[in-house]
Amino acid sequence: MSANPEEFVTKTAQLSDQVAGPFPASRKLYVEGSRPDIRVPMREVTQTQTHTKQGPEENPPIYLYDTSGPYTDPTARIDLLAGLPEVRTTWIHEREDTEPLAGPSSEFGRRRREDPTLAHLRFGTTRIPRRAKAGANVSQMHYARRGLITPEMEYIAIRENLKLDQLAADPRYEKLLRQQAGQAFGANLPDRVTPEFVRSEVAAGRAIIPANINHPELEPMIIGRNFRVKINTNIGNSAMGSSIAEEVEKMVWSARWGGDTLMDLSTGKHIHETREWLLRNAPIPIGTVPIYQALEKVAGRPEELTWEIFRDTLIEQAEQGVDYFTIHAGVLLRYIPLTAERITGIVSRGGAIMAKWCLAHHRESFLYTHFEDICEIMQAYDIAFSLGDGLRPGSIADANDHAQFAELQTLGELTKIAWEHEVQVMIEGPGHVPLQRIRENMDKELADCREAPFYTLGPLVTDIAPAYDHITSGIGAANIGWYGTAMLCYVTPKEHLGLPDRDDVRDGIITYKIAAHSADLAKGLPGAQLRDNALSKARFEFRWEDQFNLALDPERARELHDRTLPHQTHKVAHFCSMCGPRFCSMQITQEVRDFAASQTDQDPQTAVKTGMQEKSAEFLQTGGNLYQKV
Amino acid sequence: MSANPEEFVTKTAQLSDQVAGPFPASRKLYVEGSRPDIRVPMREVTQTQTHTKQGPEENPPIYLYDTSGPYTDPTARIDLLAGLPEVRTTWIHEREDTEPLAGPSSEFGRRRREDPTLAHLRFGTTRIPRRAKAGANVSQMHYARRGLITPEMEYIAIRENLKLDQLAADPRYEKLLRQQAGQAFGANLPDRVTPEFVRSEVAAGRAIIPANINHPELEPMIIGRNFRVKINTNIGNSAMGSSIAEEVEKMVWSARWGGDTLMDLSTGKHIHETREWLLRNAPIPIGTVPIYQALEKVAGRPEELTWEIFRDTLIEQAEQGVDYFTIHAGVLLRYIPLTAERITGIVSRGGAIMAKWCLAHHRESFLYTHFEDICEIMQAYDIAFSLGDGLRPGSIADANDHAQFAELQTLGELTKIAWEHEVQVMIEGPGHVPLQRIRENMDKELADCREAPFYTLGPLVTDIAPAYDHITSGIGAANIGWYGTAMLCYVTPKEHLGLPDRDDVRDGIITYKIAAHSADLAKGLPGAQLRDNALSKARFEFRWEDQFNLALDPERARELHDRTLPHQTHKVAHFCSMCGPRFCSMQITQEVRDFAASQTDQDPQTAVKTGMQEKSAEFLQTGGNLYQKV
Repeated sequence: MSANPEEFVTKTAQLSDQVAGPFPASRKLYVEGSRPDIRVPMREVTQTQTHTKQGPEENPPIYLYDTSGPYTDPTARIDLLAGLPEVRTTWIHEREDTEPLAGPSSEFGRRRREDPTLAHLRFGTTRIPRRAKAGANVSQMHYARRGLITPEMEYIAIRENLKLDQLAADPRYEKLLRQQAGQAFGANLPDRVTPEFVRSEVAAGRAIIPANINHPELEPMIIGRNFRVKINTNIGNSAMGSSIAEEVEKMVWSARWGGDTLMDLSTGKHIHETREWLLRNAPIPIGTVPIYQALEKVAGRPEELTWEIFRDTLIEQAEQGVDYFTIHAGVLLRYIPLTAERITGIVSRGGAIMAKWCLAHHRESFLYTHFEDICEIMQAYDIAFSLGDGLRPGSIADANDHAQFAELQTLGELTKIAWEHEVQVMIEGPGHVPLQRIRENMDKELADCREAPFYTLGPLVTDIAPAYDHITSGIGAANIGWYGTAMLCYVTPKEHLGLPDRDDVRDGIITYKIAAHSADLAKGLPGAQLRDNALSKARFEFRWEDQFNLALDPERARELHDRTLPHQTHKVAHFCSMCGPRFCSMQITQEVRDFAASQTDQDPQTAVKTGMQEKSAEFLQTGGNLYQKV
Repeated sequence: MSANPEEFVTKTAQLSDQVAGPFPASRKLYVEGSRPDIRVPMREVTQTQTHTKQGPEENPPIYLYDTSGPYTDPTARIDLLAGLPEVRTTWIHEREDTEPLAGPSSEFGRRRREDPTLAHLRFGTTRIPRRAKAGANVSQMHYARRGLITPEMEYIAIRENLKLDQLAADPRYEKLLRQQAGQAFGANLPDRVTPEFVRSEVAAGRAIIPANINHPELEPMIIGRNFRVKINTNIGNSAMGSSIAEEVEKMVWSARWGGDTLMDLSTGKHIHETREWLLRNAPIPIGTVPIYQALEKVAGRPEELTWEIFRDTLIEQAEQGVDYFTIHAGVLLRYIPLTAERITGIVSRGGAIMAKWCLAHHRESFLYTHFEDICEIMQAYDIAFSLGDGLRPGSIADANDHAQFAELQTLGELTKIAWEHEVQVMIEGPGHVPLQRIRENMDKELADCREAPFYTLGPLVTDIAPAYDHITSGIGAANIGWYGTAMLCYVTPKEHLGLPDRDDVRDGIITYKIAAHSADLAKGLPGAQLRDNALSKARFEFRWEDQFNLALDPERARELHDRTLPHQTHKVAHFCSMCGPRFCSMQITQEVRDFAASQTDQDPQTAVKTGMQEKSAEFLQTGGNLYQKV
């Protein structure tokens, strides 16, 4: 938008092609819950038929978890200037524990709203912010602990299940539902996620539902190790550039490819206005690091930060609708010198800000001393803590050191306090950790932080591959996800080097969808293997279109295929470019199968003995005509 | 070359820019062994100075394992038409156990050599092939078992050590040599690789040195789990296209980026001639799957394959200099029906060929029945077995099933036989395996195959990401490498979709270098972390050039950086594009360090208490001037 709503509208119109619109062979499906306003989106991928000698065999549709929001629904009217329709407003109002405010209660929020020079940047529609009634706690944890199953919880149960109940009863899915035994490291994955299970996990603090009452547009989701592993994406402008329009587009783009949540890490101009545009158009929870904006307010001088400025920033963002706050309250004064002998010192920006504040004032930070005050604010809007790991390692050498684990223990103590206030908590984790020391991170987090969901940045398993850190970190992410991390913060190829563009974001997200899904498979999440099985069956049967359509990135799969075999006819060919038309192992396997099928009354080994003689001639005959046209 | 040597020469001239030439800030170094013709290449990366308040601090050079051969040595004269200089000829001759042949002893080899229509395709210089004298065994294993340390073994010891002895005695490396404790899963990594250790590992069968006496151009390397994890790359034309020149260029390209070995999987025209060009120009071991070429000789009809045709193919390739053969001798008749209920049946091309042969003839394959004959051929040239996993799983659903593990047991039995013939063996492994079942593959391989080196294709940890299978498989590769796999066969983004181009090859290799290096770190390979530490220190100190130069892919690291901050001045800036010039956590860390350094006579916690008061004022003062120009 670079300061021009007209240009933003134009840009919006451009979204339809690349950034919005449905995926191929896919339609948006809404599964209704116990009340008509619980409408849970899923993506249904239609498959083509398999051609067999006995005639066509139907391949059933596959249902995918869908983070993309209304943007991929061609029947939805998208108007970024008006924002998304509100999913949760009725639910919030029905609880009768919140009230509308006259306007922003933060001083900064009021100032921005009243500044006429910002009019052209401001999101068009004025929302009325809400807050808990005096003395009320409106967190999902609060409800959960009182035994209340909220519509949000039911929504999530439906969403996590992906119609698995129905599929299990449908014979077309029988083979596709085969699954390898998982290894869950103490996670407790239910066969079927019920609303009551969601409630109990939130009550126990093992899962969180980030859902600010001022972000009614979001489609509820859950972060916890007994659910699907989630991924977080990051966007944000900096002093170096990028406009509001670009940030909104990146958010839609992130959600499209599978980002479950998004952090707005803006440090440049117009943080407040950018955030409003994002929130009003975000179907996914939005997180921030409020200290970044607070720092802007003191012209970038950490030592000038005060509790009052920070508090006002929290309220400002709370009333805009931010769903979770990264708070680096575990950076204690006595931990700071523990980082001095590191190779890379303190690499967390929030951690460095607080460390500098602590050193300058020679006392504990206001994040720590005012932690209970922060809890009071969080519970009035239902914002979840993402307790930041300000002392996370920035290199393999610094992994799992005293500074890191000392802070983790403090995060555990803060978790306990937050829970006393019935505020939801997740714990941020590293960073850079070699493969053999990842498990220790997970185990310590579970022990120290009482099983609060872990949310890690990778970790990167080596430092030597700048430009490929989506991969170095994707390896660590898959492993720590398997061990129990609930959400993986993505890393793009630009990590350590620059600001990600659209392609980088896509590469980062797909890498992290791979990591999260690998972890789901490894843990044995019920139904997780269905998509793998369907895609593999399509691959085996040369159903190229289905293989593309079921892929995490259908467009690129098709594009790479077409670089070698561009013609449409090749997409129905019984061969691929690796072996060419004369020879194909998949085709030979079909003969093995035909053979085995003809021997079903015998065990395989007897079948071979007795059947080989008679089948020998037949094989020699059919061998000359291996590659039948479909 | 597409049938034109002139064009090939032209192409060769083009190599210098992109495919050959030194890496930035790097020079080729040769470390001499006990005799002047043992000259072991390494890459030395020079670093810039660190600017500190106390003046400049020197950063020492870093030594990297170098697979690229003479192509990155600007002093070497590269002439693809003449081939590389011969590294090992003297060593082979000195052993006096081989003899030159009058010409190719394979019928096919003779026919190709005498065919005038192939003159324009043929490699220019006629090499005289050699073979063991009657009754002699010329394998490195044979020598090793007799207690002989060959020059190849000494070469490898020097190569694996990367001057670590000298560095450990040099104070400039003290901090850089810090290393996390490894978890080696029973691997036995020596502090220092000695020639005797190399010998003992080869004698025990735990490592192999693929080095055909007819490939004297190669720079010896070792594959075993007590050494650096290696990676294999694949090239090969198919019926769908690509020329000899392209294949040679891909080989040079593969070696440049770090491919330790290369398999020529060609299935198209002129397999014989392509292979000759590759071998004469390859500084790395070359492997093949001889059954592919044998199949070409029977016009693609597996059932028409015979032992005689296969035997002639082995000898043809042996006398060209192929260093290891993939042989799918473990595909037994009774295992074939075990694949019938799989989702993706038999996906190994060699496995499918042999399965079809077995079904057509209703008996065990000639690979199995003639296994000892094959051993006799292998030992006469020193070709290593890569025992193929013809029944490897092609999908998550099929991982670790009866078919796969039955074949693995047979491979173990064949290993025993090969070792009785003193032929070197490695074992091929999957494929597609979910994270939680990877370890079982490694453990079974070690048990069944008596610790023969494992050589796996990934494995891919999910099936749902075509176009990103370098990543799905890189995750599995890092894990299985950590557990003990000695060599990882790379996968490119084109896997399952098409033939890799140059960019795909580079992506695949870098991903696998990441996987292999992560595994080295995780196992605790001595000195492995040095490169990580050096790069991280450079990163922390804003030495951008050093960060690029130490990266696995210096070019792309620089390119991605420059997309956000293109100016040369930014490469010496004390900030990066993520945070911009106003704020940087790394810079703040420097203050923490300065503070801690001023308190060295106290323990950190006391330091904080007593020092804070006095330091407070100073910090407030320096805070205004954080970003000093270098």
